Amino acid sequence: MITNMEQIKSQLEKQGIKPTYQRLRILEFLISAGNHPNADTIYENIAKVIPTMSRTTVYNTLSLFVESALVHGITITGADVRYGIGEANHHHFLCKKCGKIIDIEVHCPFADGVTKEINGHQIQEIHGYFKGICKDCIQS
Amino acid sequence: MITNMEQIKSQLEKQGIKPTYQRLRILEFLISAGNHPNADTIYENIAKVIPTMSRTTVYNTLSLFVESALVHGITITGADVRYGIGEANHHHFLCKKCGKIIDIEVHCPFADGVTKEINGHQIQEIHGYFKGICKDCIQS
Repeated sequence: MITNMEQIKSQLEKQGIKPTYQRLRILEFLISAGNHPNADTIYENIAKVIPTMSRTTVYNTLSLFVESALVHGITITGADVRYGIGEANHHHFLCKKCGKIIDIEVHCPFADGVTKEINGHQIQEIHGYFKGICKDCIQS
Repeated sequence: MITNMEQIKSQLEKQGIKPTYQRLRILEFLISAGNHPNADTIYENIAKVIPTMSRTTVYNTLSLFVESALVHGITITGADVRYGIGEANHHHFLCKKCGKIIDIEVHCPFADGVTKEINGHQIQEIHGYFKGICKDCIQS
């Protein structure tokens, strides 16, 4: 788990990505947000603090992070791509009532990445999207 | 499995959807296509045969079918929504090389819908998206 700027910097360097100021800020925001924002939300929040940041830079940086598996793109809503920190073997739950996306740990041979092949197709990535009503909405 | 027009009609009626000519044609195309087309591909193919069909009708009809679970929306590509016939308990494999989306059967307590709750969140839908290289692309 990345928690401070030094770790963010070393994480970028480990992936062969030059840790520019803008990239560091985008990754930092994503870590602190923790709520799977989409590209527009990331841009709007960062532009408040860094007015020279362009929307294109945010989009390109997110693509670069996704390619290097530092960040993952989550298509659970069907309406936009949400971003989260790319920790291994976790899946996502979308609450149909409040819209929150929650990280969940699921254990089975598929979710754990033990199964590498299905019907002859080679599995490289598994995204488990669960939809329903979250704990908070059930109680309220 | 729906295979002919009479079955399509009775399937729509069972869901309380009036089986209009346009709705029947859209559902028929989706069944015969079998390759998870997006809304634009569906519209373009149907408009060739029925020039009076509007893009809006296709979009609205797909939404109606998804709401009634006759059809499911698949967000595996991250770039568009693909549509498939809503048969229970199947998941999807996206080939990163040829772009094909393949129906797969996965068996585990989550994929089978046996697990109804996770960390206190109530599970209503599970979408398993697998990405990798399909059998045909491995062999070619």
